[in-house]
Amino acid sequence: MKFSAMLTKRFKDTPADCQIASHIFMIRGGYMKNVGNGIYSLFPITKRITSKIERIMREEMDRIDGQEVLFPVAMPANIWKESGRYDSIANELVRFKDRGGNDMVLGMTHEEAAVHLARETADSYQQYPFMIYQIQTKFRDEPRARGGLIRVREFTMKDAYSFHTSKEDLEQYYERCHKAYERIFARCGVPEVISVKSDSGMMGGKVAHEFMLCTPVGEDSLVVCKDCDFRANMETAECVYDDLGGEEKTLTKEYTPEMKSIEDVCAYLKQDVNRSIKAVVYQKETDDKCVVVFVRGDVEVNETKLRNHLKSEVYPAQELERFGLVAGFIGPKGISDKVEVVYDISLKTSQFYTCGANEENCHLTGLNLARDVGDVNFVDVGKAVEGGICPSCGKHSLSLTRGIEVGNIFQLGDRYTSSMGMKYIDRDGTLKTPIMGCYGIGVGRLAASVCEAHHDDYGPIWPISIAPWQVQICALRSDDSEVKAFADKLYEELENAGVEVLYDDRPVSAGVMFSDADLSGIPVRVVVSPKGLKNGTVEISKRDKSYMDKIAKDAALESLKALVKQMLDELNA
Amino acid sequence: MKFSAMLTKRFKDTPADCQIASHIFMIRGGYMKNVGNGIYSLFPITKRITSKIERIMREEMDRIDGQEVLFPVAMPANIWKESGRYDSIANELVRFKDRGGNDMVLGMTHEEAAVHLARETADSYQQYPFMIYQIQTKFRDEPRARGGLIRVREFTMKDAYSFHTSKEDLEQYYERCHKAYERIFARCGVPEVISVKSDSGMMGGKVAHEFMLCTPVGEDSLVVCKDCDFRANMETAECVYDDLGGEEKTLTKEYTPEMKSIEDVCAYLKQDVNRSIKAVVYQKETDDKCVVVFVRGDVEVNETKLRNHLKSEVYPAQELERFGLVAGFIGPKGISDKVEVVYDISLKTSQFYTCGANEENCHLTGLNLARDVGDVNFVDVGKAVEGGICPSCGKHSLSLTRGIEVGNIFQLGDRYTSSMGMKYIDRDGTLKTPIMGCYGIGVGRLAASVCEAHHDDYGPIWPISIAPWQVQICALRSDDSEVKAFADKLYEELENAGVEVLYDDRPVSAGVMFSDADLSGIPVRVVVSPKGLKNGTVEISKRDKSYMDKIAKDAALESLKALVKQMLDELNA
Repeated sequence: MKFSAMLTKRFKDTPADCQIASHIFMIRGGYMKNVGNGIYSLFPITKRITSKIERIMREEMDRIDGQEVLFPVAMPANIWKESGRYDSIANELVRFKDRGGNDMVLGMTHEEAAVHLARETADSYQQYPFMIYQIQTKFRDEPRARGGLIRVREFTMKDAYSFHTSKEDLEQYYERCHKAYERIFARCGVPEVISVKSDSGMMGGKVAHEFMLCTPVGEDSLVVCKDCDFRANMETAECVYDDLGGEEKTLTKEYTPEMKSIEDVCAYLKQDVNRSIKAVVYQKETDDKCVVVFVRGDVEVNETKLRNHLKSEVYPAQELERFGLVAGFIGPKGISDKVEVVYDISLKTSQFYTCGANEENCHLTGLNLARDVGDVNFVDVGKAVEGGICPSCGKHSLSLTRGIEVGNIFQLGDRYTSSMGMKYIDRDGTLKTPIMGCYGIGVGRLAASVCEAHHDDYGPIWPISIAPWQVQICALRSDDSEVKAFADKLYEELENAGVEVLYDDRPVSAGVMFSDADLSGIPVRVVVSPKGLKNGTVEISKRDKSYMDKIAKDAALESLKALVKQMLDELNA
Repeated sequence: MKFSAMLTKRFKDTPADCQIASHIFMIRGGYMKNVGNGIYSLFPITKRITSKIERIMREEMDRIDGQEVLFPVAMPANIWKESGRYDSIANELVRFKDRGGNDMVLGMTHEEAAVHLARETADSYQQYPFMIYQIQTKFRDEPRARGGLIRVREFTMKDAYSFHTSKEDLEQYYERCHKAYERIFARCGVPEVISVKSDSGMMGGKVAHEFMLCTPVGEDSLVVCKDCDFRANMETAECVYDDLGGEEKTLTKEYTPEMKSIEDVCAYLKQDVNRSIKAVVYQKETDDKCVVVFVRGDVEVNETKLRNHLKSEVYPAQELERFGLVAGFIGPKGISDKVEVVYDISLKTSQFYTCGANEENCHLTGLNLARDVGDVNFVDVGKAVEGGICPSCGKHSLSLTRGIEVGNIFQLGDRYTSSMGMKYIDRDGTLKTPIMGCYGIGVGRLAASVCEAHHDDYGPIWPISIAPWQVQICALRSDDSEVKAFADKLYEELENAGVEVLYDDRPVSAGVMFSDADLSGIPVRVVVSPKGLKNGTVEISKRDKSYMDKIAKDAALESLKALVKQMLDELNA
């Protein structure tokens, strides 16, 4: 492609609303144009990148026996009513009525469509297992679209759905798909992507992993062990606590006027905060009931874990008095029977605690839960902390980091097949419900994440496997007939050799040409200049600056072919 | 791919709502599944076909310097308000509100998005001409989805938009794209597709062509000359009439009680129908005014041509009295001045006509329009007929036929660039508005149309260029170890040689296997059977029955490779 013919425009200045590198460079470099909140059109340079990512995805999905299908973007609501998600998902799901007044939705994911397609087709155990996938547009009405292609409302996604007759078979396939995902990320130039256990959220099911590209600009919090291979999303990371030791103490009521925070109380009573009980009060969405969560004074509540435990959305509670609670002085002993109580496992670590007395201006010290409250059911609803204990190796080696989620996989079980009545005839003639896994990667987000991971101060450094072109020819002084003749010929020869070339043939200054080349991020660059040609050379370099050399001009073609081949081989190794 | 592993199910019986071959076979053969009115999911076999069609489209678009981009499916309504189509298109355009209450639309075509992407980017004459295209999902809320993939509400479309600085340049590029379309259809195995001049409808612009696959099940009426290369859509076909000759006559009023049709009147008055004037009354959508169209008694009104002339939607008129019309006796002389009058050019052919007298139970004979009505402006709003005069060669050689529209191209002019304020700086420094062309092909409709054109009583006969697989191995008695061993080996060798193979390895009867093979329509078939192997042969045949032979089993691989290559070469010739 000749640069002069490409539909593109670059900008010198960073747009005001761009915070992260990929967003900045992809706007400045003319990769995309904002059409509306979280909605972009992609310029040719980006479509070339996403097409290559899609090809890699197809190859890896086909390699694990995936069959490509196509589901609709706009679906009748009835299949979403069957699964229950028409009602359970809030306004992230776009709903509209068609001209006939029928309820419709825009697909934000396609479990329902996958079950709908397969349920009458795969009616015998002999047809299992199978996996179907598509690469298509999805729409999620995100409240906070941000970061360019990192979090958008409309996006292209590779989504895959596998169907199985046993848990073992699902687990085995899940593992195969996990490996396929690792290959996809490696081939796209980000082998550093890690997988972490995660919460399955609105998808249903139990086991789930997110694939994370670790970067400070990521919007997910991750918990990673510095000593072993444990890694988890903060949302689900299991917590482990050391026993604090010590003997039982006498239960005593203390007057603690106006001291409503547990830190204040502990300071006043000269108690360690980790020997205190903090009360955090929520309201449940499902039944509007009030839930009091007791955690150790130094521990925070992990609301995702709490939601999963309660199987309900939760909100900070209002009107505590209505439920018989004394705000600021809530404690386990004698708590109102109008509320549901949750005890975090961090409260298993001490024989005595300071806590609210359920009376205005009073706290208790020396509370022993078993002795003073009775048989208590402990659950894990705490938040992991930096330096916390790794649930896998047991060392104080947890580290918190951030990541961009570039893919996810779920063991869905029968969440959809059961609600949508999918059955097959088993070997023994009985009707059974198959189970499912699902597997997603957003194409545009992956492209932007690669840019996030691979860039310098001047622009993206695209891995050659997904680069829009493999080689960029910069013809300095294209008005020089010798330069033009050589560059034209090199362009033609490279293209004939199957090398993808962006040929900058514009009559612009070296400065403009090089800064534009930095923004296009093409991995191999060859500079053809009057001065070089006079010395019989061209300059070949890599965009990542790891290589630069002057090559005899007659050897340029072969050098470039060899360099491209070598770089492609490295990524596919 | 092994047949046993493919997600598919076939049906023996024709579903009740299927009327046309492609719909019948694509449902019976497990190509797609209906998700809702005019909305389908595509099974793997169909996705393989559409992917190949898309690849051919990409190659041909790239060949005419197209640059692939991606526009959004869901768009903020504001760009559609800019072009005016948010208001001018009725409920075919899906409108919805996002969570922020903003007006949104689902793209049914992407002129607005194309202008939005290009308008700030292509701001200098040096960047012109250029063409951008995408292959993506569109949604049109059709009132009458029908015929399987022929007329759906959601579909994948290749849509292209070219931008130019002069009419000549647009016309030149339009011609290039016309040729690219011919190549696309030829490569997809339907070189018989013809292009006809058409109405540009809601797209705006003047010159437009539709690409039509002629078939009796098509929903478009076409006018084709049997003697020259004239062809047009009935909607726009120009009409030409012979002069009927004869002298002026005296104007006379006749009593014609209760005779309201022009045929009755002519029979009663012993006049030729083509010497009479028929009145057809419409109401305009734009201003609710009444329009009386006068055509020759033997001519029908072409409502599309009338709409274009009036620049308004029209409906059959109600309440004629309100406009001073005498139903059944309407004529040109002395007609109410509350109505708009249109004279068809068919009325230029005689010096005298019989017509309504605008009085209850009265007609006139001998009416001469110039003498008795005055200076009349004639326009062409008649419908072409079988045996009518060809406007190109002048012979009575017109023939009416039907076709499926498989593509269309439009010279849009400045319809969108002007309303959306797109400008570029011309060579002389002045700001100018570029002009556009647009070019569309529906992927699924093309697949179904190919099936419509190429099938027999048992299923589709896919051209090898777009066939889901190139070769189908039918292993008769796959439980026979010799058959299995040979078929397994042949499958592996063909795949290694790059031939796409569907290997039917199922333990089913020959009858089931062959009827399933007919439904998959794969162009080359090889039957491996115990009997054949005993004689040292396999049977190779073409799906279209033009070839069948017993080949020595050791020569099977080479024969199949040669056959596939030859068939591919024929289509790409």
